[in-house]
Amino acid sequence: MKRLNVGLIGSGFMGRSHALAWRAAAATFPLPVTPHLALLADVDEATASRAAQGFGFARATGDWQALVDDPEVDLVDVTTPNILHAPMCQAVIRAKKPLYCEKPLAPDAATAFALAKEAEAAGVPTFVGFNYLRNPMTELARDIVQSGEIGEVWNFRGIHAEDYMTDPDGPWTWRLDPQGGAGVVADLGSHIVSLARYLVGPIERLSADLDTVIAERPTREGGRRAVEVDDQARALVRFAGGAKGTLEASWIATGRKMYQAVELTGSKGALVLNMERMNELKLYVTGRTPALDGWVEIPATPAHKDYAGFMPAPGHQLGFNDIKTIEVAEIVRSLCGQGQRPVPDFREAAEIQAVIDAMLMSARTGTWVSVDEVARVAGR
Amino acid sequence: MKRLNVGLIGSGFMGRSHALAWRAAAATFPLPVTPHLALLADVDEATASRAAQGFGFARATGDWQALVDDPEVDLVDVTTPNILHAPMCQAVIRAKKPLYCEKPLAPDAATAFALAKEAEAAGVPTFVGFNYLRNPMTELARDIVQSGEIGEVWNFRGIHAEDYMTDPDGPWTWRLDPQGGAGVVADLGSHIVSLARYLVGPIERLSADLDTVIAERPTREGGRRAVEVDDQARALVRFAGGAKGTLEASWIATGRKMYQAVELTGSKGALVLNMERMNELKLYVTGRTPALDGWVEIPATPAHKDYAGFMPAPGHQLGFNDIKTIEVAEIVRSLCGQGQRPVPDFREAAEIQAVIDAMLMSARTGTWVSVDEVARVAGR
Amino acid sequence: MKRLNVGLIGSGFMGRSHALAWRAAAATFPLPVTPHLALLADVDEATASRAAQGFGFARATGDWQALVDDPEVDLVDVTTPNILHAPMCQAVIRAKKPLYCEKPLAPDAATAFALAKEAEAAGVPTFVGFNYLRNPMTELARDIVQSGEIGEVWNFRGIHAEDYMTDPDGPWTWRLDPQGGAGVVADLGSHIVSLARYLVGPIERLSADLDTVIAERPTREGGRRAVEVDDQARALVRFAGGAKGTLEASWIATGRKMYQAVELTGSKGALVLNMERMNELKLYVTGRTPALDGWVEIPATPAHKDYAGFMPAPGHQLGFNDIKTIEVAEIVRSLCGQGQRPVPDFREAAEIQAVIDAMLMSARTGTWVSVDEVARVAGR
Amino acid sequence: MKRLNVGLIGSGFMGRSHALAWRAAAATFPLPVTPHLALLADVDEATASRAAQGFGFARATGDWQALVDDPEVDLVDVTTPNILHAPMCQAVIRAKKPLYCEKPLAPDAATAFALAKEAEAAGVPTFVGFNYLRNPMTELARDIVQSGEIGEVWNFRGIHAEDYMTDPDGPWTWRLDPQGGAGVVADLGSHIVSLARYLVGPIERLSADLDTVIAERPTREGGRRAVEVDDQARALVRFAGGAKGTLEASWIATGRKMYQAVELTGSKGALVLNMERMNELKLYVTGRTPALDGWVEIPATPAHKDYAGFMPAPGHQLGFNDIKTIEVAEIVRSLCGQGQRPVPDFREAAEIQAVIDAMLMSARTGTWVSVDEVARVAGR
Repeated sequence: MKRLNVGLIGSGFMGRSHALAWRAAAATFPLPVTPHLALLADVDEATASRAAQGFGFARATGDWQALVDDPEVDLVDVTTPNILHAPMCQAVIRAKKPLYCEKPLAPDAATAFALAKEAEAAGVPTFVGFNYLRNPMTELARDIVQSGEIGEVWNFRGIHAEDYMTDPDGPWTWRLDPQGGAGVVADLGSHIVSLARYLVGPIERLSADLDTVIAERPTREGGRRAVEVDDQARALVRFAGGAKGTLEASWIATGRKMYQAVELTGSKGALVLNMERMNELKLYVTGRTPALDGWVEIPATPAHKDYAGFMPAPGHQLGFNDIKTIEVAEIVRSLCGQGQRPVPDFREAAEIQAVIDAMLMSARTGTWVSVDEVARVAGR
Repeated sequence: MKRLNVGLIGSGFMGRSHALAWRAAAATFPLPVTPHLALLADVDEATASRAAQGFGFARATGDWQALVDDPEVDLVDVTTPNILHAPMCQAVIRAKKPLYCEKPLAPDAATAFALAKEAEAAGVPTFVGFNYLRNPMTELARDIVQSGEIGEVWNFRGIHAEDYMTDPDGPWTWRLDPQGGAGVVADLGSHIVSLARYLVGPIERLSADLDTVIAERPTREGGRRAVEVDDQARALVRFAGGAKGTLEASWIATGRKMYQAVELTGSKGALVLNMERMNELKLYVTGRTPALDGWVEIPATPAHKDYAGFMPAPGHQLGFNDIKTIEVAEIVRSLCGQGQRPVPDFREAAEIQAVIDAMLMSARTGTWVSVDEVARVAGR
Repeated sequence: MKRLNVGLIGSGFMGRSHALAWRAAAATFPLPVTPHLALLADVDEATASRAAQGFGFARATGDWQALVDDPEVDLVDVTTPNILHAPMCQAVIRAKKPLYCEKPLAPDAATAFALAKEAEAAGVPTFVGFNYLRNPMTELARDIVQSGEIGEVWNFRGIHAEDYMTDPDGPWTWRLDPQGGAGVVADLGSHIVSLARYLVGPIERLSADLDTVIAERPTREGGRRAVEVDDQARALVRFAGGAKGTLEASWIATGRKMYQAVELTGSKGALVLNMERMNELKLYVTGRTPALDGWVEIPATPAHKDYAGFMPAPGHQLGFNDIKTIEVAEIVRSLCGQGQRPVPDFREAAEIQAVIDAMLMSARTGTWVSVDEVARVAGR
Repeated sequence: MKRLNVGLIGSGFMGRSHALAWRAAAATFPLPVTPHLALLADVDEATASRAAQGFGFARATGDWQALVDDPEVDLVDVTTPNILHAPMCQAVIRAKKPLYCEKPLAPDAATAFALAKEAEAAGVPTFVGFNYLRNPMTELARDIVQSGEIGEVWNFRGIHAEDYMTDPDGPWTWRLDPQGGAGVVADLGSHIVSLARYLVGPIERLSADLDTVIAERPTREGGRRAVEVDDQARALVRFAGGAKGTLEASWIATGRKMYQAVELTGSKGALVLNMERMNELKLYVTGRTPALDGWVEIPATPAHKDYAGFMPAPGHQLGFNDIKTIEVAEIVRSLCGQGQRPVPDFREAAEIQAVIDAMLMSARTGTWVSVDEVARVAGR
């Protein structure tokens, strides 16, 4: 069978997660081509070699540009720190290779739209890792909404809250670098925006409030440095389709480890998703016998998209890494013209970034902001 | 023992709930005086008599003013439709009798502050039925916050969502009458505002979005009538103490029956309350052994305020009506100078109404609004 | 309206719970007669008088026999320590008055059957306080089973576990007195047996294992006393109708406060009840669309028996004491020939006791025991 | 780095699960040797070749004996239907190669002990796939018990209930073949026995009740065939260490998909595990402040064994297949003398089977049965 030779840049958390996913994809799903771990790049050859062995890559390099240019590499997968995404993506686009980049694509919408346009002009297929969309329960939520099962959507509540930045003595890190874009509104907020768009559609206008709670943090060098990005973000949103709702993101949500929670209320029903229990979806539909009326707790089973690839038994639980495997498999199918549903591309990532930018502008000005206007100014 | 002769106006849902509470209070708690169901008033004598017998009132009347003036009545309890609260309260204040009124006190903050001032000038003790504050788990939440157990409060999320207005063919009712004030933002939103103030303190500024989803409804007379009040309400809020957060209220939250849910995030912990399971509080506190770290599910037990009045066994569950009994007992104690904690009075109710008014103004103008300014204009 | 004059013996935990229930019943439900708190008896007049005032009884006495004989008393309600149930019940039967006794009725099945026969011979209506049967969710469970909604019942799992005896330094109490009957198998096990019979029907045979974990306890007098009754009990059971299952009871179930949990599995569905969340029932029914298949979480609402008596709003939660109010109201209706469903009488209590006795015998002999045989020997 | 050449027999559900695990293990954990997918055997070469390509095996064969004898194969992994386990294992033992076999090892304890002894005599390392033991939350439970955190264990309740055999029109399958051993008591019951032994220790005596609910099933050939094995199983058990408890297994537990639930009650605390939510453990420990007392919901995080191999972020969820990866990695470490904890070997599998056999005997005879006696007779 034909191979898809994968070149991966970056061997950190997401690098390893991607490597596992590329390895597992073909053993999990019947795919038109088999991903092959061809080449791994990292900051230097030693680091790259060490990781390549563990991950099962055939070769390693300390020069990412060499990876991009390597004739054996069919697709480039970028999992480096955010600040490097843009230059690397540009290089890959120039090399006219399919491109898979971890989110967030860019520090602002202008950069993101520019990348999207470059890729489109070059005819390069692009994919961005908004992996939670690939949870079978998220896909089920989308199917439920699109089938009209819960009627017209009236309200959306989306929260992504974790607590990895709660400790005020936690050191200043690259996540806090304003060069890399916004704070939690970009880091976690972008997931909620991608979900909102996937489930309900485009956001038209919003009013946001962001705040920096921990004003400064110790640096690794021993001093202290002011924090310029947001720790918490909230917005009132209005969707183009008429629904309204709220968005929240926080990386100082003490006690919350993976609280990505969504509630959609419709005229005929409602649904709740919560990644703290990612193998469940709660559904309410009107019209049941009153005495037996209630929310249905639906467990993930082979009746849901992609689940059966992992196992035939219902309720046996997928994990976070499995979601990445689904994403990777969908990218492979998409490259072969067999894609079954939208994977966010650079344009979608830019639209998501426009919502983030609108939140930043709204918080700065204290006014409602039009997302379309922000996108237009950013060169949509 | 001395008696407290209660005059109750109104024998509907809340009337019955109050009657049960007045009867149960002295059997549940040791009280300095024993409430006695002296006189019940309703729209006509027949209705009042029928209810009086069931509820256990000694006498009945079809004339509420006569009840107010009755020399045997020590305290007047108002549970009529909202639109009647103001005139009745004024009469009671004039009669200089202690006054207990169901929420919402008035259709706007100006009326509420006027009532509060009249009562204060007359030296009349007032109480407003924001009963959820009396849930032992709410009191526990307040104790936790005030003890510093969860540190400085960083975020507040408060939602009160039910679905009793979801059906678009549900008839136009007095709840929708703009003369009576706002829609869900007043009906359920006021509960969340009272909780927010009780747990975190005054709200300083806010940006709100309200919408009317079901534009018109059938009238009982056979026609259709436009709906002028809000079905859904959301706000970004900033507390005077520095915390920020969101408020939501909806009476068209399909599937939700009693979703009054609050999450407080602090620098050292967090807590979650949800009236769908009103006998539980979830608490997270930092500093545990990492492998044993998690949220504690605290069940209501005799270790919590007022619970032991109902039974000595832990985890045996209080009900909605029991909360009303606690409220009534606290009012009795307060009248006797033995109150243990703040019961909302008319001034507090007016402050709550000022937040509602600010939400209405913000939604109308699309701007952030100062609650203090609104309160000032309303005659605080 | 006619009154039902209630004479209550005992003013402890259950005494107060009963008093509250008798007061609330007529205000909660339309009843053919109105319960009146006529006379309260306790160990001495002072104790009785104090309690009578709080509970709202008209009169008090230190002589329970006088209460039984009092011509004004229409019904006698016995809430004294278990060991006094039998002599008091006999006196009431002799006085030919309706009789309401807290469970357990007697220390063994022989005594219980003897009391039941005496009452039947005297034509005295009897009622025993297995209150959990009156939870609207328990009634819903019974309706579901009887309607065939979950098909033929294949398995029953019933657990009643609390932890009030967990502390080995907790003092020796009357609960441990072997004169009063068995240990937890009687105290909590009887609730599970009553539920099993109410939901599934008679138990035919069983194999049980009981153990005493805390071998001795300090006495209030300063010494130590051996514990002769069981702390934990488990049984394999076979129902006459063909279902099989397990029963468990424990009063040393560390961490469990009110874990009365039941799971019924049938050929077409299943249901789960758990008194830790007494306002919920979980129902599974086969035949749903696979992708939307799951357990329904049914909240208590006015669609369920008796709930609407307390409030018209769904999901607003009943409490433990409300269940007692339902029991009392059903007794009143039953006395007036308007009963809607079976309240356990002395005969039913004796049948339940026969299952307890069979568990004791099985544990002693290490063999399967026929419940019918035990009941026959006990004089059924 | 050195390789461990794996020969896998069987490419069904468990075959694929094993293949994925062997591929993922070295990319997930630092291992002393790297597993290499050397050779895959299935019923014929075509089937084997097709699967080999998807799974990533270097070679394929239709002859399992050839795989066993292949000089390149270092370890043989058996995932065939149960009935083939014994002959294949014997061949591998004769070839003196490390051996990893899916559970259940054998249809009865006699066969299992015989295999264990053969392997021990030959010095062959053996491993059996009781994978749930490797869930980090299971390991946490064991650590908690062994550290004394919950004190002396008083009670164990273990249930493994699924519903894959509920439909009476589901066809007769190999699972029902009495030649392959018992019914659900072996298929799912063995998991609960392995957990009971892992967490609490050996079971000494038991009284069991098994039943066949669906008496006959359609065959694929069009007729009907009687079912001779059990559909439901329950037992009262006594552990050698003094704890008592219950075991249950059912494959007709309508509505349950993966209800493997365990509750351990100890003198100082308790814990609950439920594979329906496999990333959580609930822990109760005595001695907390009464008002803050409750169960702690512990989410799986990098603080728990093996979790960090998959990702550095807490609460991000492992899946069923990840547990298999942990098992495989532990086997690799164990082969290299670096094992960190007991993986069940053939002797442990035989001990588990002895409990199953004792349950069958108890159910047949209606008596309590000594597990030691059964094991002795089976040739322990």
